[in-house]
Amino acid sequence: MQEIRVELTDHPKPKPTAADKLEFGTFFTDHMFVMNYDEGEGWHDARIVPFGPIELSPAAMCLHYGQSVFEGMKAYRAVDGRVLLFRPDKNMARLNSSNDRLCIPLIDEKFCEKAIEKLVSIEKDWIPSAEGTSLYIRPFIIGIDPHIGVHPARHLVFIILCCPVGAYYPEGLNPVKIYVEKNYVRAVRGGMGYTKTAGNYAASLKAQDEAEKQNYTQVLWLDGVERKYIEEVGTMNVFFVIGDEIVTPELQGSILPGITRMSSIELLKSWGMNVVERKISIDELAEAARNGRLKEAFGTGTAAVISPIGHLKWGDEIMDINNGEIGPISQRLYDTLTGIQWGKIKDTFGWTVEVK
Amino acid sequence: MQEIRVELTDHPKPKPTAADKLEFGTFFTDHMFVMNYDEGEGWHDARIVPFGPIELSPAAMCLHYGQSVFEGMKAYRAVDGRVLLFRPDKNMARLNSSNDRLCIPLIDEKFCEKAIEKLVSIEKDWIPSAEGTSLYIRPFIIGIDPHIGVHPARHLVFIILCCPVGAYYPEGLNPVKIYVEKNYVRAVRGGMGYTKTAGNYAASLKAQDEAEKQNYTQVLWLDGVERKYIEEVGTMNVFFVIGDEIVTPELQGSILPGITRMSSIELLKSWGMNVVERKISIDELAEAARNGRLKEAFGTGTAAVISPIGHLKWGDEIMDINNGEIGPISQRLYDTLTGIQWGKIKDTFGWTVEVK
Ligand SMILES: Cc1ncc(COP(=O)(O)O)c(C=O)c1O
Ligand SMILES: Cc1ncc(COP(=O)(O)O)c(C=O)c1O
Repeated sequence: MQEIRVELTDHPKPKPTAADKLEFGTFFTDHMFVMNYDEGEGWHDARIVPFGPIELSPAAMCLHYGQSVFEGMKAYRAVDGRVLLFRPDKNMARLNSSNDRLCIPLIDEKFCEKAIEKLVSIEKDWIPSAEGTSLYIRPFIIGIDPHIGVHPARHLVFIILCCPVGAYYPEGLNPVKIYVEKNYVRAVRGGMGYTKTAGNYAASLKAQDEAEKQNYTQVLWLDGVERKYIEEVGTMNVFFVIGDEIVTPELQGSILPGITRMSSIELLKSWGMNVVERKISIDELAEAARNGRLKEAFGTGTAAVISPIGHLKWGDEIMDINNGEIGPISQRLYDTLTGIQWGKIKDTFGWTVEVK
Repeated sequence: MQEIRVELTDHPKPKPTAADKLEFGTFFTDHMFVMNYDEGEGWHDARIVPFGPIELSPAAMCLHYGQSVFEGMKAYRAVDGRVLLFRPDKNMARLNSSNDRLCIPLIDEKFCEKAIEKLVSIEKDWIPSAEGTSLYIRPFIIGIDPHIGVHPARHLVFIILCCPVGAYYPEGLNPVKIYVEKNYVRAVRGGMGYTKTAGNYAASLKAQDEAEKQNYTQVLWLDGVERKYIEEVGTMNVFFVIGDEIVTPELQGSILPGITRMSSIELLKSWGMNVVERKISIDELAEAARNGRLKEAFGTGTAAVISPIGHLKWGDEIMDINNGEIGPISQRLYDTLTGIQWGKIKDTFGWTVEVK
């Protein structure tokens, strides 16, 4: 395995204080991990260096043609002071799945996990400890060839950033308002929907912007082919409790295989609940809402963990779900997942990895 | 209108020589145009400065979420020494259409045309004069907020680069080999296919890479919904001469509205030819090839102008078109378009703009 060279900063920044609220993605720690890929040499020169700007050719591949993938994960300060990661192996595996689709050379997953652990251990003091706070970790890879032409890059850089982030729900789990997007499509089978690549998020900006202007938190995407099957929400996968079935859209290439989704399915199964991955149309959902069988709806994702959906708008039809309150299954999943992540309850699944 | 500040380089680079072959997108001129957008201030600080690297936060919006649009156009050294642009207003209009879809603040099209003219006039000596060569112009806009979060940027930069480029067909117009892509999809209606944004090209890398490995130049994309209607080719729109009809896929939101496509349609119409924009399925095309009615096929785009397609592979079916030779309509379009662009024939359409 490669050595990781460490160059510590001479100018550590003051850590944000409680008053800073730790708005998501705004504060960065003192260091970042950097590693280069050059054709013929492979991934090399792994290093942890002071956080700072990067220099790119204005012709850099990623700026023009979007060869860019990323991951999103967190380090949690457990109640007993340990620092925990949640299923980092799954993030690295997904990064390689994105890499494959975007013609980016694969990374050594085990090595990159170690790199994350090393960076987090150096930035340990940046991990906030207030209830619900954590250190968000953003590994990403960009093609940087200083060359204009649609061709996989021969030179790339892998960077890991860390941001202390506040509690997603400082005032408790408030159900969100979502609307069903009818005009725009995020991704389609055969495309890049199952990857975490820049273009998928670029495609979502316009709908997201219109949703916010109408006072909705995010949009619920429908499939790009028939425009009727439910896909996912903004940066979350989605689950519905209909009668005694818990339904989540199956993975067909157009939605992100969320790690919170995967963990939620595993938890629900371990509780003996009837969770199914299948196609679910917006008509079926509206029908279930109309006849009172839609009991809960929630999103799953690293940022919010579990995000109950209290209000869903589909054209003129409004679905009010569980009186706009969090339901028992959403609550149990939230408590269990966050319990495991912050080391409050025993991790019988072996999901957490301690950073020494 | 804004002033454009000019700061000339102290270190002009040697110009590439004929021996350099001017590989596309590899050589850059001495200067670039730069202009910033900051929320509240609008587009400001337009300047022409020495070409050089740019500094970005590693958290910059464009690197993670792909908020990036671009254009591609050329300046031609006419046979009489004048410098000509080809329909630059159309490129600026398309840039604004991309901006709108990507939640990027609109530019002042007239002003940006002037900026291009000014930059090109400063870089005049970089425009090569050998047959078929030109100066490729790459305007692009990227969101640069140093903030991780899926949200339209509040800070952006607009840059224009120039590259002297060689003749696309140094050995004459050689028909290309294309294969019909069956697994991957580039874009779908409701998505961003009609824009020039980074993510569309990222989505195309994998198919393009596989095509090259099989010794094909580019892929022909089918629509993402029914997977049977012809869309476009790599970085070209596509036309087919079937019987006495010239068919090109209609614009439905998933393909780029090419300026060479638009100009070709206008030319064909001016010649009294029967050109139609409509849906055309791959089955219809294969059927036409089988019964000898497919006479010509060609791509249209700024880089190659007209690119005859001599060989088209769809699964096991091979369509050999016009014996792998350029056909009369392709040739006439090529001669006329390049004739107008290089000022060899009179521009009765008012398409060219002289750079003083
Ligand atoms: C598009 C999208 N879907 C779903 C998710 C949820 O995935 P995970 O649970 O791995 O965070 C995310 C974000 O993280 C996302 O960006
Ligand atoms: C995807 C795509 N289609 C078509 C074209 C042709 O457009 P134009 O004729 O404006 O160059 C281009 C490139 O320029 C392109 O990138």
